[in-house]
Amino acid sequence: MSPRDGALIRAAYGEHVDHVPVWFMRQAGRSLPEYRAIREGIGMLEACMRPETVVEVTLQPVRRYGVDAAILFSDIVLPLKALGLDLDIVAGVGPVVAVPVREQEQVSRLPEFDPNRLEFLQAAVRALADELGDVALIGFAGGPYTIASYLVEGGPSRDHARTKALMRGAPELWHELMARLVEIVAGTLRLQVRAGASAVQLFDSWIGGLSPRDYRRYVLPHTQAVMAAIADLNVPRIHFGVGTGELLPDMASAGVEVIGVDWRVPLDRALGRIQSGQAVQGNVDPTLVLAPWEVLAAEATEILRLGRAAPGHIFNLGHGVLPSSDPDALARLVDLVHAFPVEDGG
Amino acid sequence: MSPRDGALIRAAYGEHVDHVPVWFMRQAGRSLPEYRAIREGIGMLEACMRPETVVEVTLQPVRRYGVDAAILFSDIVLPLKALGLDLDIVAGVGPVVAVPVREQEQVSRLPEFDPNRLEFLQAAVRALADELGDVALIGFAGGPYTIASYLVEGGPSRDHARTKALMRGAPELWHELMARLVEIVAGTLRLQVRAGASAVQLFDSWIGGLSPRDYRRYVLPHTQAVMAAIADLNVPRIHFGVGTGELLPDMASAGVEVIGVDWRVPLDRALGRIQSGQAVQGNVDPTLVLAPWEVLAAEATEILRLGRAAPGHIFNLGHGVLPSSDPDALARLVDLVHAFPVEDGG
Repeated sequence: MSPRDGALIRAAYGEHVDHVPVWFMRQAGRSLPEYRAIREGIGMLEACMRPETVVEVTLQPVRRYGVDAAILFSDIVLPLKALGLDLDIVAGVGPVVAVPVREQEQVSRLPEFDPNRLEFLQAAVRALADELGDVALIGFAGGPYTIASYLVEGGPSRDHARTKALMRGAPELWHELMARLVEIVAGTLRLQVRAGASAVQLFDSWIGGLSPRDYRRYVLPHTQAVMAAIADLNVPRIHFGVGTGELLPDMASAGVEVIGVDWRVPLDRALGRIQSGQAVQGNVDPTLVLAPWEVLAAEATEILRLGRAAPGHIFNLGHGVLPSSDPDALARLVDLVHAFPVEDGG
Repeated sequence: MSPRDGALIRAAYGEHVDHVPVWFMRQAGRSLPEYRAIREGIGMLEACMRPETVVEVTLQPVRRYGVDAAILFSDIVLPLKALGLDLDIVAGVGPVVAVPVREQEQVSRLPEFDPNRLEFLQAAVRALADELGDVALIGFAGGPYTIASYLVEGGPSRDHARTKALMRGAPELWHELMARLVEIVAGTLRLQVRAGASAVQLFDSWIGGLSPRDYRRYVLPHTQAVMAAIADLNVPRIHFGVGTGELLPDMASAGVEVIGVDWRVPLDRALGRIQSGQAVQGNVDPTLVLAPWEVLAAEATEILRLGRAAPGHIFNLGHGVLPSSDPDALARLVDLVHAFPVEDGG
């Protein structure tokens, strides 16, 4: 068997599955003691650029949980860092960019995509694809809007006020910036698929802060460009952002096979808004993992039940695993999902 | 003329108006130089507890913009502070509670509502109602969920993980905590209306982080209790939270006359989800105030156009005025709203 025949890829394409596939955003990371041990004394971006660390960290949750997919351990700003942009991930803060990108000058100076500078990524993906066998490996990239927001703000931001000021005040410069990022994002995803990734997920985490009108005007064409640039690779394309209930119909027009749904929008409503046949992924509130098992189990079961009406359903949280999550609760959740009958036996 | 005959209250009740009423959440505050001047050297909570400061700060935007309503300058944690709870508002952080409320012991020790400890609030409201004449004065209170989140987390939080853990893990304690807050919130609103406020707004800012199922189970009954406790006062009740697109149908069942709508959900969709005849308030993205005037004007006009289909429309931003906003842009926006024909002349 190859990953292509496994439940995750089959569900992504809306094909019949023998069990509901499951993985967790940020399944590799701070909630795992074995991850915290390996990260001791190593910065986040440094860890992401060491193939042997990436391989080990990516495999940890697969070993522990028996999930249906590994997700490449990485960060959305990693490609820019590897291509030479001066940025870092500061613990407790997030990505911090040395010179915020707000003028033509800085946009023009953004690095070009260069696969040679991402050889560590190819090496990691190749080794992972070998190790994983029939378990799917999901390639990872940040979406252009979310990356742009870090570049323009210079770091994390609550309102993305400068980002939105740039896109509305200097739309030509904005579209140029986004086009530059599309090239880097698409290049990074192509490289991962060519090295063996069996699916990709575009994390455009912060698009949910945009109204649908703004999303369609300033972001969607660029997401479509990313997706079009990898269409020939024939792997499922998953697209995810937080708080995107109002954007789902537009996200469905981006050229994707799977749409990630956060926990704010009930899965049945999400399905009603996605009329173009895509599979869905999600949508458990990540804080439910901290709840008593009976509460988590009841919500998970309800979501699995609603997921039966989807063309395909990949079980996941509605955002990343919280660092304070108990790995045993996630392990139990995987067992619950795998034991859930894919068809109503009634 | 009294505030009852003004455009704001009339629109709130779905009555005919001669112009669309407008005010801005956080219109009194850091975007105004005259506010920054008055706040110099005075802590936020201290400022909120000095009637003469509250009056002056509340009036500043009315003088400057000619808005249709003043909103009492206050903070959602103020009543608890005034009633004796040990908390503060730390600049750049937000409300910080000395002893987080997570156990029965702390819930039992929460202060009772006592109007005598809120005399400064009565004094401020009385003076404001006198000064404002026919301009509406909106009373202010935080919603029980949002206040609870600060109490349980001990401060601001991105995920409200502890809050949600408490509500799911100890639902009886949660409901007891919420019932205690309902008493304080309702008491604070009653006091303001009796002192002369012509409407009230319940800011339950963070409810949008809840799924509709969780909202209905853990929050809505308490919001209904607040609204029921002030129903006999015969002033319009406005209810607002951020990112509440999925909650609008439930919020509409809380016993309110006006539902605040943030910018993520287009106004026509919001109206489609509110089938019980309420007026709406909103929904301009606060970052649009930082955009070139033409962009802001076009979006505002589109929202005004969509608002014509509402039983009543109070123009506002979809969240608070950002501190970096230019007051002149807001002044121009008020003029645009006031000049907009309430009926399609075509």
